Amino acid sequence: MTKPPDIESTVPKAVVSRLSLYLRELQHIVRDGSDTTSSTQLGQLLGFSDAQVRKDLAYFGQFGYPGIGYKCQELITEIKKIMGTNRAWPVVLVGMGNLGRALLGYKGFEQQGFHVVAAFEVNPKIIGTQIEGIDVYHIRNLREIVINNDVKLAIVAVPSGEAQSIAEELVQAGIDGILNFAPVTITVPDNVSAVGVDLAIELEQLSFAVVNQTQKP
Amino acid sequence: MTKPPDIESTVPKAVVSRLSLYLRELQHIVRDGSDTTSSTQLGQLLGFSDAQVRKDLAYFGQFGYPGIGYKCQELITEIKKIMGTNRAWPVVLVGMGNLGRALLGYKGFEQQGFHVVAAFEVNPKIIGTQIEGIDVYHIRNLREIVINNDVKLAIVAVPSGEAQSIAEELVQAGIDGILNFAPVTITVPDNVSAVGVDLAIELEQLSFAVVNQTQKP
Repeated sequence: MTKPPDIESTVPKAVVSRLSLYLRELQHIVRDGSDTTSSTQLGQLLGFSDAQVRKDLAYFGQFGYPGIGYKCQELITEIKKIMGTNRAWPVVLVGMGNLGRALLGYKGFEQQGFHVVAAFEVNPKIIGTQIEGIDVYHIRNLREIVINNDVKLAIVAVPSGEAQSIAEELVQAGIDGILNFAPVTITVPDNVSAVGVDLAIELEQLSFAVVNQTQKP
Repeated sequence: MTKPPDIESTVPKAVVSRLSLYLRELQHIVRDGSDTTSSTQLGQLLGFSDAQVRKDLAYFGQFGYPGIGYKCQELITEIKKIMGTNRAWPVVLVGMGNLGRALLGYKGFEQQGFHVVAAFEVNPKIIGTQIEGIDVYHIRNLREIVINNDVKLAIVAVPSGEAQSIAEELVQAGIDGILNFAPVTITVPDNVSAVGVDLAIELEQLSFAVVNQTQKP
């Protein structure tokens, strides 16, 4: 296998999204007991062409073996390296409403190496308590905990009106990446990344699928 | 404007995802007070090329005006028609744990025309109560409520171990599309659509961005 080239910042976002999907399918394939797979199988599982799969992976290196295809475990390791999830990421979570609590209990984060190390709130009733085994702190302790735990990623689950000011506090505390669940766009400096999660988009995709399914003869 | 052609079921999924993003940006642009936009502006806001924007929209028709660009309100209407969100969708939500409660309170669904008409649980303590103004029913009432309200879409927020059996009950009750938040893949018949939401994927995208940002010289 050749060494992957330096990852360029010009890799299209859509390719990076698909890498996550390839990673999930590879993890499923391994769980189902197979050691190898192919661009055809990966493509079929996800509804892409095999050419698309090969082209996407080619941005990062040459991972296939002639006559074998991909060795699943090896490709999982490589994709995790590319995504930065070959290491554990300590994460802080701000906002302990229903969504924040739901996210604290979400098993999918831990499975992919994201460990919530602390939760933050302003409601005095729950500061000092534990939720899902995680300590809840006052937001004024943010900077200290971020520095002490070398935290780079934060999840924001506060009401829309507070999202921007929380984002600014997170940036000041040294956070490099923010996953924002508030249904509002937040502005961050160029050296910080922000990803917004819009859950209605998924429902829209579903309504598109249903409308087109029912339109079929 | 020419009439859009019949939407083919062969439109790539990635194009349909981007339509949702275009719709959101158009809604923002209108809220900010502009009546028109261009493929260049839309592309810049989302990090795509203007050619990509034009190519995506061309799957569905010819929407631009020479010397003007796109009329925002008109394009919003057209995209909503394509996505099937030019109508209101009644939706049922199954599972009233933290995530289900958070989703009941999520403003983004209502904004895009998805109205949760009923919630379902098996926990007798909350059956018969209202959460976020929505009645909570026993799961055995599912079929009746789905039929009476002509519900086609359902959101599943139950534990992983229950997701498949709930999906089967939903299909039997006449549901055509399922948005699944349980971190497990559900199997549905060919005439039913299922979309899985994997929240860890968004965090992975963020770790990729952060890793590549910090690798820059």
